[in-house]
Amino acid sequence: MRVRPKNHHKINYRGCFRINILNKKIGVIGGGQLGKMMILEAKRLGLYVITLDPSIDCPSSSISDEVIAAGFHDGDAIRRLAEKTDVITYEYEHINAGVLAELENRGHKIYPSVSSLLLIQDKFTQKTKLSDGGLNVPRFKSIETLEELQKYADNSGFPVMLKSRKDGYDGKGNFLIREKSEIETGFNSLGGKLLMTEEFIDFLTEVSVIAVRGINGEKAVYPIACNTHRNNILDTTEVPAALPSESLRVDILEAAERVMDIFEGVGTFGIEMFIGKNNKIYINEVAPRPHNSGHYTIEGCRANQFENHIRAITGLPLGETKLLHNFVLMRNLLGQSNGMAKTEGTEEAYRIYNGVNIHVYGKRESKTGRKMGHYTITGDSPGQVREIDAKISGIVKITGGEIDL
Amino acid sequence: MRVRPKNHHKINYRGCFRINILNKKIGVIGGGQLGKMMILEAKRLGLYVITLDPSIDCPSSSISDEVIAAGFHDGDAIRRLAEKTDVITYEYEHINAGVLAELENRGHKIYPSVSSLLLIQDKFTQKTKLSDGGLNVPRFKSIETLEELQKYADNSGFPVMLKSRKDGYDGKGNFLIREKSEIETGFNSLGGKLLMTEEFIDFLTEVSVIAVRGINGEKAVYPIACNTHRNNILDTTEVPAALPSESLRVDILEAAERVMDIFEGVGTFGIEMFIGKNNKIYINEVAPRPHNSGHYTIEGCRANQFENHIRAITGLPLGETKLLHNFVLMRNLLGQSNGMAKTEGTEEAYRIYNGVNIHVYGKRESKTGRKMGHYTITGDSPGQVREIDAKISGIVKITGGEIDL
Repeated sequence: MRVRPKNHHKINYRGCFRINILNKKIGVIGGGQLGKMMILEAKRLGLYVITLDPSIDCPSSSISDEVIAAGFHDGDAIRRLAEKTDVITYEYEHINAGVLAELENRGHKIYPSVSSLLLIQDKFTQKTKLSDGGLNVPRFKSIETLEELQKYADNSGFPVMLKSRKDGYDGKGNFLIREKSEIETGFNSLGGKLLMTEEFIDFLTEVSVIAVRGINGEKAVYPIACNTHRNNILDTTEVPAALPSESLRVDILEAAERVMDIFEGVGTFGIEMFIGKNNKIYINEVAPRPHNSGHYTIEGCRANQFENHIRAITGLPLGETKLLHNFVLMRNLLGQSNGMAKTEGTEEAYRIYNGVNIHVYGKRESKTGRKMGHYTITGDSPGQVREIDAKISGIVKITGGEIDL
Repeated sequence: MRVRPKNHHKINYRGCFRINILNKKIGVIGGGQLGKMMILEAKRLGLYVITLDPSIDCPSSSISDEVIAAGFHDGDAIRRLAEKTDVITYEYEHINAGVLAELENRGHKIYPSVSSLLLIQDKFTQKTKLSDGGLNVPRFKSIETLEELQKYADNSGFPVMLKSRKDGYDGKGNFLIREKSEIETGFNSLGGKLLMTEEFIDFLTEVSVIAVRGINGEKAVYPIACNTHRNNILDTTEVPAALPSESLRVDILEAAERVMDIFEGVGTFGIEMFIGKNNKIYINEVAPRPHNSGHYTIEGCRANQFENHIRAITGLPLGETKLLHNFVLMRNLLGQSNGMAKTEGTEEAYRIYNGVNIHVYGKRESKTGRKMGHYTITGDSPGQVREIDAKISGIVKITGGEIDL
């Protein structure tokens, strides 16, 4: 009997066991839940996966062939990842695009491409590109000084949505200025530079579309999802979204395809849109990666958003995206307290209904408000599914407890 | 930047990072494709998995939290696996049941239970138990001497199906005696002990049912699959099986449930049956584990056979088993030559149809006839699906090539 960590041999006999089944090794920057769910699909195809993440025990860790423990801005580590892999992708867009550009110029495959990434990383260039491409976006303006912001507010009236152009997510980097006295606080709290204002859309509903585009431009689009947020973090996704008209549905799907072409996106993208009270579509935000609002596709669709991401970045044709159930609901499970993660209520929830799946990301530490998992319910009707959700949403929880060895 | 194998820290800080998300750590004996596909489901639930397999680079290796490299009869290794985990399961039934019995007696959880395993490991006790439980099986008789076999053949006529009572699979351990002159050859080729004869059933069709039973006796049964074999190895599975009558369908499903109760099976079982030309059902063989003919459930059903296996052995209620598509076909991909495994044709197959999934198990070495992967096609009708299968079955292949570093 030999007991050793499974990858130990990879150090001793370097290269010798790094066999590449499908002629592709994939590097994933970011080992959180999105990376983990990508790898679960890559492993079905027999691919070899290396994860780069600051944390050696990130969710992807236990299912990656190798882990490079390094920060998202560590150029040396990203170069090393490129040397060891055939294609690099990422589950997080706030990474070192400069090094990726250098690698892409040297012929390394990076998908989505660095030009897509650079345009999207900066919300101002993202919105400019969308607007130039003929898509409707909330009115926006770059802000460089406090005076400029004050002048803008005087003209536009309140509220004013002030955003950092870079690094924001889950509402971080946003400040809603409700009255004149908050202008300076807002400006300073976002660091006073690289800011933009955005028209505040009093929307009817918030939807998202998960869209995928292959290297050759082939596109696949998932059904439209309706999202609700709580404290700026996605709370639930319901699919298909109830929409006021069929023509709006067609317009939303067409807009999603146009977004993919505008950014020449390769891989799975999440596209958030507002439906205004005027029934107009506003593109709110584009994420160049699989998206939280697309987790429903794991149980909901034939090929889920992660499988299609892997297909796209490895040059494979895309899989079927239609919904397999009448109605699907996804609910995020946020940490309810701090400490070592503990999941409760799985058994009880599964006893209530056999069309529920609870996903636990495997983060060691729960923190209040941290995304720790999600569940998906599939069923025959919105009424049935929501009734089950109402029952189990109070039962399933992830909390922080004492260390458990 | 720190580069190290992902489990390295588990050695340095033993225990410290072995955090148990769902309060369950699972030990899996056998790291082949069945073990790998179990782990892919266990990981969605956030479970911690340790694999025991003779080969450190088995298919499960890269997605297990730890690998114990040891033989299936290595008692010390199995004891060590038990110490480290809350529940042990297996993907292969020809393992050291003696040690498992000792562990079960000491209170370790082993699912399926050792009594199920012992009854099933020996085909004679398996058939006896089935027959005593009122199920129809091919007539069978234990054979201890050559004379006994000769006498049996004189009475029964030819052909005579001679089987090893233990360790047989994929036709290994079977010998079809076609005439008197082959009796001695057959007897000796199977080692001359622990043998049995079985009535040779000239069947109309061969079906299988994947059935799951929870610790508390809850049962879930998948749709009936129709199987074809080539060289005694499963070639294709089609679901739903075309059957001469609805009453036969009901009888088959009832028989499957009865099998689970007779063996008090916990977990997913594969139950193979012959449908005789007389329309009678004969239970051919029971496997106390997920089964090759149940791979179609990954794309075909809401909860696949591996997810339900993990649910059953961890005490969770079972997931939905109904078919999501009109028709599903699974085809095994056997190695076509010897050498380092290479998969060809994935891109072309995916281009032909977007409802195909190719699964590559990640075995380093291809051998002629070795199970290297499979593909599943879902579609609207048998005609459509078989037409696609006819196109892609010549395109997708796994062969052995030179070492590729």
